[in-house]
Amino acid sequence: MPTRIAIFLFDQVEELDFAGPLEVLGMWALYFPGDEIEVFTVAQEAGTISCALGTRVIPDHTWDSAPDFDVLVYPGGVVTNSHIGNESIRAWVRKAADAGTLMTSVCSGATVYADAGLLDGKPATTHWLVLDQLGQLGQNIEVRPDDRFVDAGNVITSAGVSAGIDMALHLIVRLKSADRAREVKRMIAYEPAPPV
Amino acid sequence: MPTRIAIFLFDQVEELDFAGPLEVLGMWALYFPGDEIEVFTVAQEAGTISCALGTRVIPDHTWDSAPDFDVLVYPGGVVTNSHIGNESIRAWVRKAADAGTLMTSVCSGATVYADAGLLDGKPATTHWLVLDQLGQLGQNIEVRPDDRFVDAGNVITSAGVSAGIDMALHLIVRLKSADRAREVKRMIAYEPAPPV
Repeated sequence: MPTRIAIFLFDQVEELDFAGPLEVLGMWALYFPGDEIEVFTVAQEAGTISCALGTRVIPDHTWDSAPDFDVLVYPGGVVTNSHIGNESIRAWVRKAADAGTLMTSVCSGATVYADAGLLDGKPATTHWLVLDQLGQLGQNIEVRPDDRFVDAGNVITSAGVSAGIDMALHLIVRLKSADRAREVKRMIAYEPAPPV
Repeated sequence: MPTRIAIFLFDQVEELDFAGPLEVLGMWALYFPGDEIEVFTVAQEAGTISCALGTRVIPDHTWDSAPDFDVLVYPGGVVTNSHIGNESIRAWVRKAADAGTLMTSVCSGATVYADAGLLDGKPATTHWLVLDQLGQLGQNIEVRPDDRFVDAGNVITSAGVSAGIDMALHLIVRLKSADRAREVKRMIAYEPAPPV
């Protein structure tokens, strides 16, 4: 049985939030077929997604058509504020978590998990702009402002936007090996050197 | 007049090659409207683009419909091998370069510029897998294997996949200021911390 990784897409999702993990995990799936990894995108309903910076993407699956998955990546964006309190999203993420899915998030995606109760009593992080908000959601979330990502067992949260790349490499370490993560890191030439 | 930045999309383009610069430059455009930056995607023809890892994207413009642009981002992917020797692509990039466009590339996009003669006698870099190929294209290209990106004046090339993020931040430094690049860097929480 393959390990299936679903990346959630929704209107106004931040581009790099999902494209970073998609690149890392998709490269893993493509270049190491023996690892039996499948990566796909999934949206609540059919139709084109308009991302935060204007990119239009056609998801692979809808909630109804998607196969069962072992890992969920929930990206962020300013729009996730509107996911908080949304009962259908709460039900969807709770159902996935209850089924044993490894729940991961990038950026403000963590606030949606918090709202659904998935982070109660756990350490977590998110984009620096919504660290305070994260601490006010759920019950007794231990907010870690300085962590790039936080692996709390069945939930892994990461910091803002670009942190999803680091979190996805950690996923490979956790699900396969550090050597494999290094191989994928080399494929995407991830030796970051910010000029500022 | 706005500064217009076009990101070229084509079938089998590598996702992060274009999504990295798109995130950096799109954030710049969105959060600093006073800088008058416009970012759009452009493909040769109308229709959905299927990227290297399966993502389907609908470009904003075609070659015919796109407004004039000041900066071009040419991403890479294994598929750029098929762009080499393609006369319509050669003509399109030469026309842009001749018009004074600042030509930038990510990953193997540099090999297409090299094939079109844009890198003759200049320093350049590309994905480590095609550094040798880069040196065999064009005339007297000075291949720089250890640089994250190379600013050769009217052409800027960058290393593989994730290097487009660093190159795009450099573009902000060059076109605006280091302070602005730092502001955008902070918005995308780009404090990379690879776990391997």
